[in-house]
Amino acid sequence: MIPCPIMKKTLKACWLLLLGAVLITTASAEDAATLSLMPVPARIEQGSGQFLVGQNLRISLQGRGDARVKRASDRFLQRLSLRTGIPFLPAEPSSSKPNFIVNCAGPGLKIQTPEEDESYRLEVTANTVHLSAPNPLGILHGLQTFLQLIQLGPEGFAVPSVVVDDHPRFPWRGLMIDVSRHFFPVEVIKRNLDGMEALKLDVFHWHLSDDQGFRVESKKLPKFQQHASDGMYYTQAEIREVIEYARDRGIRVVPEFDMPGHATSWFAAYPELASASGPYEIARKWGVFNAAMDPTKDSTYRLLNTLIAEMARLFPDQYFHIGGDEVNGKAWSQNARIQAFMRKHNLENSHDLQAYFNQKLQKIVRKQGKIMEGWDEILHPGLPQDIVVQSWRGQKSLADASRRGYRGLLSFGYYLDLMEPASRHYLVDPLAEQAADLTAEEKKKILGGEACMWAEFVTPTNIDGRIWPRMAAVAERLWSPQEVRDLDQMYARLAKVSRDLEWLGLTHATNRRMMMERLTGGADIRSLDVLAGVLEPLKGYDRPDAKEYDSLMPLNRLVDTVPPESNVARVFAGDVDLFLKNPASEEATHVVRERLGRWRENRSQLATLLQSSALLSEAIPISQNLESAAAAGQQALDYLASGKHAPSAWREQQLSILKEAEKPQAEMLIMVVPSIRKLVEATVPE
Amino acid sequence: MIPCPIMKKTLKACWLLLLGAVLITTASAEDAATLSLMPVPARIEQGSGQFLVGQNLRISLQGRGDARVKRASDRFLQRLSLRTGIPFLPAEPSSSKPNFIVNCAGPGLKIQTPEEDESYRLEVTANTVHLSAPNPLGILHGLQTFLQLIQLGPEGFAVPSVVVDDHPRFPWRGLMIDVSRHFFPVEVIKRNLDGMEALKLDVFHWHLSDDQGFRVESKKLPKFQQHASDGMYYTQAEIREVIEYARDRGIRVVPEFDMPGHATSWFAAYPELASASGPYEIARKWGVFNAAMDPTKDSTYRLLNTLIAEMARLFPDQYFHIGGDEVNGKAWSQNARIQAFMRKHNLENSHDLQAYFNQKLQKIVRKQGKIMEGWDEILHPGLPQDIVVQSWRGQKSLADASRRGYRGLLSFGYYLDLMEPASRHYLVDPLAEQAADLTAEEKKKILGGEACMWAEFVTPTNIDGRIWPRMAAVAERLWSPQEVRDLDQMYARLAKVSRDLEWLGLTHATNRRMMMERLTGGADIRSLDVLAGVLEPLKGYDRPDAKEYDSLMPLNRLVDTVPPESNVARVFAGDVDLFLKNPASEEATHVVRERLGRWRENRSQLATLLQSSALLSEAIPISQNLESAAAAGQQALDYLASGKHAPSAWREQQLSILKEAEKPQAEMLIMVVPSIRKLVEATVPE
Repeated sequence: MIPCPIMKKTLKACWLLLLGAVLITTASAEDAATLSLMPVPARIEQGSGQFLVGQNLRISLQGRGDARVKRASDRFLQRLSLRTGIPFLPAEPSSSKPNFIVNCAGPGLKIQTPEEDESYRLEVTANTVHLSAPNPLGILHGLQTFLQLIQLGPEGFAVPSVVVDDHPRFPWRGLMIDVSRHFFPVEVIKRNLDGMEALKLDVFHWHLSDDQGFRVESKKLPKFQQHASDGMYYTQAEIREVIEYARDRGIRVVPEFDMPGHATSWFAAYPELASASGPYEIARKWGVFNAAMDPTKDSTYRLLNTLIAEMARLFPDQYFHIGGDEVNGKAWSQNARIQAFMRKHNLENSHDLQAYFNQKLQKIVRKQGKIMEGWDEILHPGLPQDIVVQSWRGQKSLADASRRGYRGLLSFGYYLDLMEPASRHYLVDPLAEQAADLTAEEKKKILGGEACMWAEFVTPTNIDGRIWPRMAAVAERLWSPQEVRDLDQMYARLAKVSRDLEWLGLTHATNRRMMMERLTGGADIRSLDVLAGVLEPLKGYDRPDAKEYDSLMPLNRLVDTVPPESNVARVFAGDVDLFLKNPASEEATHVVRERLGRWRENRSQLATLLQSSALLSEAIPISQNLESAAAAGQQALDYLASGKHAPSAWREQQLSILKEAEKPQAEMLIMVVPSIRKLVEATVPE
Repeated sequence: MIPCPIMKKTLKACWLLLLGAVLITTASAEDAATLSLMPVPARIEQGSGQFLVGQNLRISLQGRGDARVKRASDRFLQRLSLRTGIPFLPAEPSSSKPNFIVNCAGPGLKIQTPEEDESYRLEVTANTVHLSAPNPLGILHGLQTFLQLIQLGPEGFAVPSVVVDDHPRFPWRGLMIDVSRHFFPVEVIKRNLDGMEALKLDVFHWHLSDDQGFRVESKKLPKFQQHASDGMYYTQAEIREVIEYARDRGIRVVPEFDMPGHATSWFAAYPELASASGPYEIARKWGVFNAAMDPTKDSTYRLLNTLIAEMARLFPDQYFHIGGDEVNGKAWSQNARIQAFMRKHNLENSHDLQAYFNQKLQKIVRKQGKIMEGWDEILHPGLPQDIVVQSWRGQKSLADASRRGYRGLLSFGYYLDLMEPASRHYLVDPLAEQAADLTAEEKKKILGGEACMWAEFVTPTNIDGRIWPRMAAVAERLWSPQEVRDLDQMYARLAKVSRDLEWLGLTHATNRRMMMERLTGGADIRSLDVLAGVLEPLKGYDRPDAKEYDSLMPLNRLVDTVPPESNVARVFAGDVDLFLKNPASEEATHVVRERLGRWRENRSQLATLLQSSALLSEAIPISQNLESAAAAGQQALDYLASGKHAPSAWREQQLSILKEAEKPQAEMLIMVVPSIRKLVEATVPE
């Protein structure tokens, strides 16, 4: 352990200090900043010297780990080859002495669980690497840490001397992908699992059914894939392939079959499940629908029993997610027979009826040896305490559940489809807010969290860009010490992670470029890139006329292309703040002026292109607004830099221009306008 | 047929005229330039109006084609979805009337042959598309033509009204990939097959064995994969998968097993095959080796018979390539027993002995029902006339063979590993030079050509960029009318093809960026891009110390990253010529000055980066040379634009600077120096 000046105080206090010092206890902040690990490990000590990554690298697998360790080591060498360009032969005769010792103490559980130890220790010296862990999960994580530590310097690719003692803060760190509203082929899932492995995530929550489609082949109930999937579903062989792929990467696969609402597509296959008589078709629109299963009929439970028994065998994980969200009760209140049933069973409202349904469902799930998981709405005193609640409502909901003895995980604040910046997700903590007051014992019931990728507005072409790199911020929140919260540092590390992910085959950067070229019809994208760089899609559920959208609508517009978060706008906001602190600084002025100049010129450069493409013509007003806003910014800059007063009429006019420019256009926002407004507002009125 | 002013003359004359008018008979050259088909079809007529590509597209498959047509149509819809962003459901109920009629008259041959008809007719009107062909091959080609015709305009994605009557000029249009010197996993092969389909290529020549590795699993002779492959080989299941994948794309797969030379790796597995006693190891260096099979022993032919029988069953194609190139005879001349054998059989030299070997081999190949193919060297009067000669020597070699009754194909001029510009490959014609004088009957024996991707200096990361887009120029040469040879038009179409290929998953553009980021260690690549943009790898076999390279050497340098052809340099050469024609033109001067300015500034922008990366430090002298050359160019520009005379001392000094800058550095060339030299030489001496 390298010296820590306040070693006598508590370790935690030392930790806080370390975090303040760019997280790493090194002499120079510069050194530390280059160690851009994400998620930040629980404990790290940096030594001196570095381990050169060259062809003499020889791995020795020791201990008694299972077959995953060998496969992980092979994949590790492949990744290393790709990242460095240095070839490593798969079957090279090991003549030289091993210098990369992987010691896995024992095999993992046959079925990975949240309780399984994920810790590892990685020691890198100038000559040797030692990676040890109690089981393969830690080895997987440690190999990822090593890959992230590789730096290219004057001597070549190297990893600095370091000791990492690491384990996650939460045992449940997940990503949910909705494959119902849009379908995603196996290769999309696989490359996202690769991304998850890189960020030490351990749960892939597969949202397999919803109103818009049922996506798994059933051998027992084949009408599901025949009538509820539009031909877009995973065969059971594909499901097994994905599960194996995930297990190799230390990732559990939790399936979700959403019941009793969000099930319109089910009724297209098995109308007898529904509360109303139908007829039913696969839903094409978005939203919450009235259709719901009939919880009063035995036949409903018989069919669900058949399905769940089959799916429980297909998916080995201990947990089985039954959805349970957003049942509006209308299908039940409109059915006299169901109303009579409710009266007979003293069920006061639809929530009670859903609880009745869930109790029956829980027994079916339990019979298969599984633990039931569901969204907030399933919470009801009648359910046994082994169920797990996934909360889209927030920490209060989790805290309440925890006090009542239920385990839970947070998804509130981690909805990636809402197009929020990484910073916002990053600061959401499962143990903050109302959960902060829980006892230690109660806190343990909060298992972690899951980011959610709902799929109304994503396709295989743009989904990676909706998940990554922001997902990495959530991954860090769920793995790293709670005190790790510096936004600037997070963004610096996020930029590196984003590049690393491309080496894994994720397409967020590549496909952004491809979609831009689609928009321009193959013309040069540079001018469009200037415009697109300052735009973001509308936030939250503001995408207008979302109900007018359907699953067949092309998602090939500029709004579908621009990333959820504009780095240009984020950096510009910082530049403007810097300038406003010191308007006399030539450099600060220059930076802001240069940006504004580029945006002001952009409209005329783009005009012909925007007019010539059916997909881009909607961006003409945005381009005009950017030009006007940039002009306002330039003039404000002149006033501020020269120290002159600004005429009131001019200020009013500019603020009204900016107000216009702040309005959504083509379902996007110009994200630099608020910073330009700051400039205008900072001028001194006459 | 739209009016052609010289319709009364021969069609061919009309064709020439059409070609002159940007290939298409339209009123406006602008319209025609946008129809950037590659390869240019045999015949095309443009009408008025356009077919809008929208969700109402309904394909109807008619006629009696085989199952490939349905699969091609499914893939076509997927491609269409990707390219336009418009979703097409695979199992959509076909309510509306079909507007895209695919009529395939009959099934294809069970085993595709060079004689099989590849023609098709594509008619597009404002309302309907009709694609017809005698068999699935034409349908495949026609679908690719349709995809290339899609344009994005103010009304959306559309295909102009057009009638295309198309067929290839040559029946054998191939790409050879060497998977021995470096190994390429199945996904690399598949994405290149996708590229081949897009360019209407029909032969994938798989160079499966060489000194550096034997890449196919043999069930009968498993030592091949065990001892001759470093663990890098294709299983038979993978081979079958690739063959099926290729067949679905109208591509034959011709395997090559190189014998009796280029077989060192074989001897690591079966040393008894060799002429000398060994011991043998897999070769790691490049070059021509002495080791060769022993053609005098019966046991050699018994083993080859076993191998060829197995491989002939695995690879269904009619043709079987036995290599036969570059046997230097040393292994034979150094072996007294072999020398005695030669005397006994009246074999005067090693060429005679190889012919003896080939005759025996040909009988083994023939016994499996296959036609033997080999490189130039196999030509020998003793061989039957059904063999096919692949010529790396040139048209003379082909013409000679043809006169002697042998069929042949050209690879001379199509070696993609030599880093030549697309223009050079493009202008090489199998029926030019000595072959131009052949009779029509003799010309028919020249089946076409194959580009060759030898793999000394390629990895899975950069191979796509070595093959594409230049390969498309060869594809056009082999498909389109001989008269299609305009370079500017070719380059314009090539740029579009290059973008299209990225949608197929080819990585030439993406991986160039990734490799640049690898070089910078993740730092911003823009400044490096300016330098890299003017560089090309050394040409031909000039890569210095090639013999010092081996198969384990990292190919992660700048030379491995920059494309074989610098578009920047090509465009700059044109700009300089334009300027020199009219030095008074402000615009022409501005264009050249702007470029020179950027290059002159580049060194200082790059200096820190180049010093900090072990992979980039070798580029420091290049960066300095570019700076000096650009300065020379700027000064020359000043003299030329001002009309002033240039001092002789200055001229001499600049020319010597440029001479230095023209020298290879880090195995690369600065491709803009010759144009800068033109500027300096154009100055008027005092």
